[in-house]
Amino acid sequence: MGTTSVKTPVKRTSRDIRTANRYEVLRQIIAESPTSRQELAAATGLSLATVATLVGELLDLRMITEVGFEDSAGGRPRGLVAVNASGGALIGVDIAETYVRVELFDLGLNVLARAIEEMRPGENQPEQVVAHAAAAVGSVVMQAGVEGARVLGVGVSVPGQVDRATGVSEYAPNWDWHDVPLLDLLTEHIAYPLYLDNPLRACAVAELWFGAARGRTDAVVVNLGTGVGAGLVLDGRLHRGVSNSAGEWGHNTIVLDGRLCHCGNHGCVETYVGAPGIMLNLRELSPDSTLLHPEDQTATIDALSRGVVANNPVAVKVVRDTARYLGAGIADLVNLINPEVVVLSSWVAKTLGEPLLDEVRAAVARHALKRPMAATEIVLSPIPTDPVCLGAATFALEGALQSVGQRATAKRTIPARSRTAPPS
Amino acid sequence: MGTTSVKTPVKRTSRDIRTANRYEVLRQIIAESPTSRQELAAATGLSLATVATLVGELLDLRMITEVGFEDSAGGRPRGLVAVNASGGALIGVDIAETYVRVELFDLGLNVLARAIEEMRPGENQPEQVVAHAAAAVGSVVMQAGVEGARVLGVGVSVPGQVDRATGVSEYAPNWDWHDVPLLDLLTEHIAYPLYLDNPLRACAVAELWFGAARGRTDAVVVNLGTGVGAGLVLDGRLHRGVSNSAGEWGHNTIVLDGRLCHCGNHGCVETYVGAPGIMLNLRELSPDSTLLHPEDQTATIDALSRGVVANNPVAVKVVRDTARYLGAGIADLVNLINPEVVVLSSWVAKTLGEPLLDEVRAAVARHALKRPMAATEIVLSPIPTDPVCLGAATFALEGALQSVGQRATAKRTIPARSRTAPPS
Repeated sequence: MGTTSVKTPVKRTSRDIRTANRYEVLRQIIAESPTSRQELAAATGLSLATVATLVGELLDLRMITEVGFEDSAGGRPRGLVAVNASGGALIGVDIAETYVRVELFDLGLNVLARAIEEMRPGENQPEQVVAHAAAAVGSVVMQAGVEGARVLGVGVSVPGQVDRATGVSEYAPNWDWHDVPLLDLLTEHIAYPLYLDNPLRACAVAELWFGAARGRTDAVVVNLGTGVGAGLVLDGRLHRGVSNSAGEWGHNTIVLDGRLCHCGNHGCVETYVGAPGIMLNLRELSPDSTLLHPEDQTATIDALSRGVVANNPVAVKVVRDTARYLGAGIADLVNLINPEVVVLSSWVAKTLGEPLLDEVRAAVARHALKRPMAATEIVLSPIPTDPVCLGAATFALEGALQSVGQRATAKRTIPARSRTAPPS
Repeated sequence: MGTTSVKTPVKRTSRDIRTANRYEVLRQIIAESPTSRQELAAATGLSLATVATLVGELLDLRMITEVGFEDSAGGRPRGLVAVNASGGALIGVDIAETYVRVELFDLGLNVLARAIEEMRPGENQPEQVVAHAAAAVGSVVMQAGVEGARVLGVGVSVPGQVDRATGVSEYAPNWDWHDVPLLDLLTEHIAYPLYLDNPLRACAVAELWFGAARGRTDAVVVNLGTGVGAGLVLDGRLHRGVSNSAGEWGHNTIVLDGRLCHCGNHGCVETYVGAPGIMLNLRELSPDSTLLHPEDQTATIDALSRGVVANNPVAVKVVRDTARYLGAGIADLVNLINPEVVVLSSWVAKTLGEPLLDEVRAAVARHALKRPMAATEIVLSPIPTDPVCLGAATFALEGALQSVGQRATAKRTIPARSRTAPPS
C-alpha cells in the first residue's frame, strides 16, 4: 500500500550509541572507584576494546585518572582508574518557588559546598531570582576555593516549561512568567557554561545516573514540590518529547471540572498534590488546624510530617487524602508507561517520607491494572542530597561529555551561549 | 557519590540498529516501488554500502526483487528493486468484542482477501472466538488461492493484556478472560507462524509503518473501539513497557469516583469514550432516543454519525460530550508525552470521522498546556483499511524480518511456538 507522506526517517546513529556508552562507563566509574577496564567491561556489557577507548577519552579529559594496579589471578597486573575528583567542579542550581539552592560538586558528584537563598512570598521577578542564583553560585565557588577555570559548567533548573535551545523560560505557572530570557539574564552574572532545564527533568536525570532509575529500561520519577511533574526515563534515556516539555503530568486531569489550576485547566493532579494543593486539602478538612501555616508551604508540610509521626488524626487524614489523589495519578503513569520503577522525589516526598509512600502504594494498587502494577516498584528517591541540584549538575556533566564527540581533543568546552572567563 | 544498587545497564546494540535500518529500508521500498539503492540511501539517510547490504538480505529472502534499470544522468544505469508482491503472504487477524475480521496481504501490504465473522452478544468463550478466527483464516487463504507454504505468518490481535512470550491472554476486561492460553488454542487450528498482541499496539505499528506516525520520533495512536487505548511510538519505535502492557490509557482516571469500569476502577477514560461509554452518554442525555440500539454498538455509533451529519441536536450533543472526555484524556497524553502527532484510529474514530475530530481538537486545546499543544497535530488515521488487521500482519512481517538477524541464510522462519506444515 502507499503511504500518505514520506518523511525523513528516525535513525539511531552510532554516535548516539557512543554517547550512551560514554555516559555508562563514567557512571560506573563514579559508582565504583577504583576499577579496572576488565571490571568495567563486565559491568557494562561493552567489549574490552570499546571500554579501553572510552577510558582513554575520559583520561584525556582529566575526568578520571590512573591509580595503580591490582593483581589479577596469575596474569598481568590490571591498571586501575578512578574518578579524578579534583579534575573539575560542577555546579547545580535549583531555582524553586520558595528558595534558590546551589551545590558545588567534585567530579565524583560529592558535594563540596552549599548555599541557599530563601525567597519571600511575592519575590518572583526574573531579576530578583537571577540575583539570588548568582549570589549563591558566587558563594559556593568561594567556599570551595576552586579556581574559576575548573568549573566545567553550571546546570540551572527553573520551574515550568523551558526551551533549552534558546534558554527561554516559556511558562512558569506558579510565577506567571511568560517568555523570560533567563539564560541571557543568568549569563550577565554567571561566567561559566550554563545549561538550563526544569526540575522534573533534573530529578529524572539524577535518578538515572545515581539513584533508583540507574540501569532501568523504563522508569518514572515523580517530582513532588510546589509544582509536580513526572520525568520519564524510557529505553534507558531521558524522554524529552518533541519540544522538551514531556513529563507535564502535574497538569493531567484526574477530576474533570475539579479545582481550578494556574494553567487554566480544572482538576489537574498538581492542584491536589502540589504543596499548595496539600495545604488546601488540610484547609478543607480542618480550616483552623494548627498544622496550617498559611503563608509557608515548608512549615506546613513539616508540621504534617511531624503530625503523622505523632498520630495526629488530621495529619493522618490529610496525608491519606493526598495519597488517594497521588494514587490515581500515579496509576495513570503505571498503566500508560508500564515502568519498572516509580520514584517519589523532591522535597515534599522527602519530608512526608515512608508514611506517604505506604499510603501511595496502597492507593496505586487500587487504581492500576494488575499486569503493569505487578511489574512496578514504587520507592522513595534514595538520593541523600537535593536531587534537583544533583540533576542540574549532571546536565552540566553531560554537556561536558557531549563535547567529546564533537571535538575529541578539546581541553575546554565552550557552549555557544556562554562566556568562558572566570568571574572577576 | 555512591549508588544504591548497580544493575546491568541498558545498551543499544548495533544489532538493534541493523534491525531498525532493515525495517526502514523495507518500509521505504513498500512506500515507493520501484526504487534504486541510491534513492533508498537518500530517503533513509543510510550509507549506500549499508543500503546495498540490507537490499541484498531482502533479495535473499525474496521479499523484494530486481526489476531492471533506470538511466542515471550520464553514469552507469542504476538497478531498480521493488516489493516482490508474490514473495509471500501475511495474514492479520483482528479479534474484537463484536467480530473477528481477517485480511490476507501480499508483501506490498495490499489486501488480497477478507473475511469477517460476526459474534453474537455473549459469544465470548475462548473456543468460540478461536473457531471464528480459524474459519476466517481458512477462508482468506482459500479465496486468495495462496499455497500454505507462502504464508509467512499470521498476526493476531486480541483485546486486553497479552503476554507475547507465552501467548497468554492475561486479562480481557470486556470478556472477563483471565490467563487464557490463546496461542496454544490457535495453534491447534492454524498451522502458520503466529504472533499474538493487542489492538492498541497493532494500530500503533500500522501507523508507524504505513500511516501518520511514519517517520515521526514521538507519536501517540489513540485506539477508539469497544475498548480504548493509546499505542506509544517513542524514539521511532513501539514502546511496549517492561511487561508489554504500556498504553493502557483507557484505564486512566479522568473523573475520580466516576463511572464504574470493568477493571474495578472508577472514572476510567474508557467508561466515557469506549463504544459502550458513548452509548451511556447517549442514554443519559436522551433515554428514549431512536439513535440508541441497546444491544448493538455498531448500529448506535452509525446512527450517531448519520445524526451529526443531519444536524440532529441529540447526536451533536453526544459527540460533543464524548469529545469533552476525549479532550481531557488526550490532553493528558499531550502533556505527558509531548508527541509530534496524535492519531485517532479504529472503528469508532473512523465512523464518527471529521465531526469528532473537530470537537476533539477544540477540547484538547482547552485542557492541554500551550507548549506541547503547539507542537502536536491531531489527525484521523489515514489508513484506508482495518488498521488492526494491517498492524497484526505487520507484526508477522516484523517477525519474518527479525529472523534475518538470527540466521542470515535461512530460507524459512520457524518461530519456536508454531508448526510449519500448511493446513491439510
